[in-house]
Amino acid sequence: MNIKITGSGSYIPDVVEKNEDFHQHTFLNIDGTSIDNPNEVIVAKFKDITGIAERRYAEDHLVSSDLGAMAAERAIADANIDREELDYIIVAHNFGDVKANTLQSDLLPCLASRIKHSLKIKNPHCVAYDILFGCPGWIEGVIQAQAFIKAGMAKKCLVVGTETLSRVVDKYDRDSMIYSDGAGATVIEVTDEEGGILSHESASYTFDEAYYLYFGCSNNQELDKDTRYIKMEGRKIYEFALNNVPTAMKTCLDKSGVDIKDVKKVLIHQANEKMDEAIVKRFFRLYKTPMPEYIMPMSIHKLGNSSVATVPTLFSLIKNNKLDKHSLKKGDVIIFASVGAGMHINAIAYKY
Amino acid sequence: MNIKITGSGSYIPDVVEKNEDFHQHTFLNIDGTSIDNPNEVIVAKFKDITGIAERRYAEDHLVSSDLGAMAAERAIADANIDREELDYIIVAHNFGDVKANTLQSDLLPCLASRIKHSLKIKNPHCVAYDILFGCPGWIEGVIQAQAFIKAGMAKKCLVVGTETLSRVVDKYDRDSMIYSDGAGATVIEVTDEEGGILSHESASYTFDEAYYLYFGCSNNQELDKDTRYIKMEGRKIYEFALNNVPTAMKTCLDKSGVDIKDVKKVLIHQANEKMDEAIVKRFFRLYKTPMPEYIMPMSIHKLGNSSVATVPTLFSLIKNNKLDKHSLKKGDVIIFASVGAGMHINAIAYKY
Repeated sequence: MNIKITGSGSYIPDVVEKNEDFHQHTFLNIDGTSIDNPNEVIVAKFKDITGIAERRYAEDHLVSSDLGAMAAERAIADANIDREELDYIIVAHNFGDVKANTLQSDLLPCLASRIKHSLKIKNPHCVAYDILFGCPGWIEGVIQAQAFIKAGMAKKCLVVGTETLSRVVDKYDRDSMIYSDGAGATVIEVTDEEGGILSHESASYTFDEAYYLYFGCSNNQELDKDTRYIKMEGRKIYEFALNNVPTAMKTCLDKSGVDIKDVKKVLIHQANEKMDEAIVKRFFRLYKTPMPEYIMPMSIHKLGNSSVATVPTLFSLIKNNKLDKHSLKKGDVIIFASVGAGMHINAIAYKY
Repeated sequence: MNIKITGSGSYIPDVVEKNEDFHQHTFLNIDGTSIDNPNEVIVAKFKDITGIAERRYAEDHLVSSDLGAMAAERAIADANIDREELDYIIVAHNFGDVKANTLQSDLLPCLASRIKHSLKIKNPHCVAYDILFGCPGWIEGVIQAQAFIKAGMAKKCLVVGTETLSRVVDKYDRDSMIYSDGAGATVIEVTDEEGGILSHESASYTFDEAYYLYFGCSNNQELDKDTRYIKMEGRKIYEFALNNVPTAMKTCLDKSGVDIKDVKKVLIHQANEKMDEAIVKRFFRLYKTPMPEYIMPMSIHKLGNSSVATVPTLFSLIKNNKLDKHSLKKGDVIIFASVGAGMHINAIAYKY
């Protein structure tokens, strides 16, 4: 029995927000003081570190579950399955549906219920639930789908990652430039075909790290203290990720029994280009191997960091030959890996 | 291999809100018109239907994850396990942490990360995630823990249900009287001991039913339309529950192979006394059996409807002989059942 991704799809929102669009923003330090550099310098420095030149925002009339439903439609079509045969719909997100220009997260009903409703699936035995697990939520959803299949509780699962981070950013915070909106989805099935999920690794670091990403006040001290936004301790996250993600990836790969030389691609959460490169380099260094060229496909330059959506979107782009210089052929071993709020880390070794 | 609940605990908040405390509220119809009856009549009628005489609210300085952490501490102590051996912490809720007198749901990091942090657990391989599945979230968390154990991915899991519905009610809506705050937690372990989870059933009805419970505007038409509250279509939910919960419970019990005569207790989500009684009566009627006395323990009279917290709290109260006329002895078969926002339904047949 193997467990494979039989279909994938993504929804990349239409609104392109370029770095230049931030030139008129008022960026402040966390204590509310102004930043010495002009915005052009701040934005150029930001691009150097993160690699982000532009990002996508959802149109105002759409919410996260709408994005997720569109990605799901594409994944179902790609898998060419009867949607009524799905046993689970697992939806990863972090903020629920946040309408444009409002403050509240709408979680009632859960987004999986909304997406199942939009997909017009009638079968009540298709169980629809949400998982909150920071940016690694989509990978964790795949790990849970695998558990249900192994436990004999499911044969076909839809796993969606969807997020509209543009709705929860503090525009006075430089970090607001990182975040974007998007959705990715995959169908996971039990199959007799060779390959599929070879191994996985999952971890939650909460003793010191739980609040490295948090919901906090605006850098503009004059704004309402009860209105909160996505906030992060970037330096701490960078160090944490470098210390822990490469070893988690190695644990995962070692469990699979695959040789490092046979790894064809590392699809890592698009958090920050410099950080991602440092993680993947260190991962190969653990095997005393240089990082091969074209091992790490990146979509962050044009799509930003859309949290749970980055990894399934990247996979869908490559599978459909929409990412320059990157393709997959049957038998290729790839690694999915992510790190994010919680702090959670996970990885899957996968034979395409 | 059996899977048993080896420890349970609850946190019942200190603030008692009595029905009389609602006599001064201004209740309005959904269209904003005033209600003909005086509040005393409205409240008395409410009590007749729901059975609720008082409910508990969390103190202002506490949020949902605090309640969950306290219930979790008690469940861990009751199970007498080393907390560092937990493989999963699964936390069910519906609105995240909502601070008193604020509007936003704080979901960053997820509540499971916060609870693991509060429990001072260091082991990173204890994976902490949240599940959103309406009121049936805690039961679904137990079903997921079972899946991880069956798939060989876990041996010990902590499953928490925690909610502060008092923070999301529309005080102009009579239904606000239903909702309360609370938390319940259980430790689930693989064991050689006889009994444990015998069978389960899970379903999501979203085609027509997805928005029977929803996040909507206040009945007071003058309030900000962008501020939303928990809302429900009570009549539709009542009919839906009566039509679908008894059959789901029957499917679950039939899978277990246990005879209806051997069912000792039905621990049903404390939604509304009249509805719960009608469900359980109809369940027994499906077996052409009258509903036995003392089959359905109720805590709703004093504790109200605290969503995901009601079933684990009820279990914990009975296990610790804190609910009059109700006790459990080794070998007793009980049924856990729930229905709620989504609309989701689930049930577990369990041998104590």
